[in-house]
Amino acid sequence: MDKALSFSKRGDALIGQKMFHVLDEASRLEASGVYVYHLELGNPRLPPPPGLLSTTTRSLEELNVGYTYSAGEPSLRTKIADKFAELVGRSFRENNIAVSPANLIINQFLDLACDPGDKVVFFSPAFPTYWAAAAHIGLDVIDIRLSAENGFDLTIDDVTKALVHSPKAIIVNSANNPTGAVYEEAVLTYLAKECDRRGIWLMSDETYGLICFDKTFFSLAGYDFPRQVVMSSFSKIFSVPGFRVGFLLADPRVVSKFSLSTSTLISCLPIFTQKGCAAGIDVLDEYTAKVRENCRTISSRCVDLLGKVSSLKFTAPLAGFYFFLDIGAGGLSDIEFSTILLRDYQTAVTPGTSFGPDFSQFIRFSTCGNYDDVVNGVERIVLFTEQLTKN
Amino acid sequence: MDKALSFSKRGDALIGQKMFHVLDEASRLEASGVYVYHLELGNPRLPPPPGLLSTTTRSLEELNVGYTYSAGEPSLRTKIADKFAELVGRSFRENNIAVSPANLIINQFLDLACDPGDKVVFFSPAFPTYWAAAAHIGLDVIDIRLSAENGFDLTIDDVTKALVHSPKAIIVNSANNPTGAVYEEAVLTYLAKECDRRGIWLMSDETYGLICFDKTFFSLAGYDFPRQVVMSSFSKIFSVPGFRVGFLLADPRVVSKFSLSTSTLISCLPIFTQKGCAAGIDVLDEYTAKVRENCRTISSRCVDLLGKVSSLKFTAPLAGFYFFLDIGAGGLSDIEFSTILLRDYQTAVTPGTSFGPDFSQFIRFSTCGNYDDVVNGVERIVLFTEQLTKN
Repeated sequence: MDKALSFSKRGDALIGQKMFHVLDEASRLEASGVYVYHLELGNPRLPPPPGLLSTTTRSLEELNVGYTYSAGEPSLRTKIADKFAELVGRSFRENNIAVSPANLIINQFLDLACDPGDKVVFFSPAFPTYWAAAAHIGLDVIDIRLSAENGFDLTIDDVTKALVHSPKAIIVNSANNPTGAVYEEAVLTYLAKECDRRGIWLMSDETYGLICFDKTFFSLAGYDFPRQVVMSSFSKIFSVPGFRVGFLLADPRVVSKFSLSTSTLISCLPIFTQKGCAAGIDVLDEYTAKVRENCRTISSRCVDLLGKVSSLKFTAPLAGFYFFLDIGAGGLSDIEFSTILLRDYQTAVTPGTSFGPDFSQFIRFSTCGNYDDVVNGVERIVLFTEQLTKN
Repeated sequence: MDKALSFSKRGDALIGQKMFHVLDEASRLEASGVYVYHLELGNPRLPPPPGLLSTTTRSLEELNVGYTYSAGEPSLRTKIADKFAELVGRSFRENNIAVSPANLIINQFLDLACDPGDKVVFFSPAFPTYWAAAAHIGLDVIDIRLSAENGFDLTIDDVTKALVHSPKAIIVNSANNPTGAVYEEAVLTYLAKECDRRGIWLMSDETYGLICFDKTFFSLAGYDFPRQVVMSSFSKIFSVPGFRVGFLLADPRVVSKFSLSTSTLISCLPIFTQKGCAAGIDVLDEYTAKVRENCRTISSRCVDLLGKVSSLKFTAPLAGFYFFLDIGAGGLSDIEFSTILLRDYQTAVTPGTSFGPDFSQFIRFSTCGNYDDVVNGVERIVLFTEQLTKN
């Protein structure tokens, strides 16, 4: 009776997020008693703002365990609106904000903007969920590859190349995961203006915008046109990725459509996690200053460590939690390098091809874990590379 | 510059869940100082099992705020497997279980089983998310309307009518929301066997299975074929709908596909809510016995109250939190009745057409809220109906 199973086309097109496969493999190793250095996920280990946790706990104890609005808790939406008004100097109202898991927001954006077969532009290397969501929906991805020589910065020329294709939608991600690049105001503004003028949907993924430690961040939230969606997440800002609370800023009509999508897919988010994030916003400035300082310290330590081996090429990140490392000199592909590094050096990293098909000579490692683990892991990457390149 | 916005076809097809519109409207009324009797959502007000809340809180305090497996916390999956093995007398392993919000599981099931244009069968009245998910994906819904005279029970004849259409998938929901009907073992087994034989995907939504107070529940989890997915939710079992934790039992290959979908859409669920639900499973039998007793008491009180007006037709529920009430004698449509009931009698209910296009002479009300509120709300429904029918 055990017939062959076949799924829908969209089911067959699912690729998931490769970092989670690495996490699974690493966990299997740990289950056998091996200590693993986790540099594969952007899973911050800094304790979250204390008020965030205590508010979440109190909300639970007050039995806030029922349903709430699909668009998000009104108190949280208002606080996000006010905070962004302060950050970018443009006024927002509650109806400019929707709350949803950040990963789902990416899927929702592409689903609401594009029909199967439509063109969408990513500037690669690009966050794995963009690829996974586009594959699931059946979109035609126009992959504009940024230049490593240029530190993977976005240029006017890259934007022009994208526009030539007349895409339905574009996703831009500054501060960037995985490269740590922070794009110029002039380039981002040009991109937004052209999208506005041409009727192209634009998602600005600003998840790491508040974690720029070596360059001033420019947010597109200050720029206003109906087809623009600016998104971010409390996962990284408050070190609570397991809360699964993200948010977006957009035209109220777009916000309504997102809420309807959230209602259809997951009904709503928990109240208590949203109350916790709202409490976090009260200390956002102080807390993100600490996160930035942490990132700067560990990044500069990693730059020193990696500097020892000339065969490892990289651009020092200006923001965020990641190094995108060219390991090509060792002669192994990203998958081979990652697999052996985990097996022989107990260090988990993310293969470069998670970020686009052209990056098989890259790996990404994350610096947001425990300080000693990151240093140990990077030392192991260095050791492994020295082994590979010594002959 | 404010061009007309247009969304994708799937975006245009979004209908959301009408109950949430009612909740929004009721909340607006409350904001103006009016006390509202909430009978529109299955939002249980019984306190959750104490061990569930304290474990969730402890897990938060232990900083379990990172990412976890897309398929769910291993400890929770194992406990679900063991509990269902005990309940239905068939052995399950961790890899038979995936964790995801129950509402999302419905969307994922249809998305993984069906391509746009494929036929899917619902036996109506049927839970609004089925309609919303099918509309979003672009499925051809075959609506097999169950008979009110028969208490909306599912018969062999209904199943035969469904099979004639050679659908790609069928969703069956016993114990039923909104009718409170509990289907016969012989009918469910016939349905499963025919789906197995014909290669039809079958989802058995058993969200209210453990809340049968007047009939023994038969679970399809005891029946084994690769295209069957049995789902349930901790929302109703443990009175924590705001946790957004549901689960499914299926063939390991189907479970893997669901995990990949969860990874793509929302990465994973929070760890702490899953730990809380795992703790709840330790007291599941005692707790659900209490829930059933509560449901029986309030249901029988509602039967008494509604019995006063012969113009209100209904079948007393055998399970769950709902009454599906024929209000046709009053001459108003479901939308008119609900709107005026909320405005003039401060009582929120769900319009019947949320459950299928044919139910404009029905409303659903929920009995799982505060006892006095439910009694008050039902008295108001009775009052309003007496007003409508007195001439």
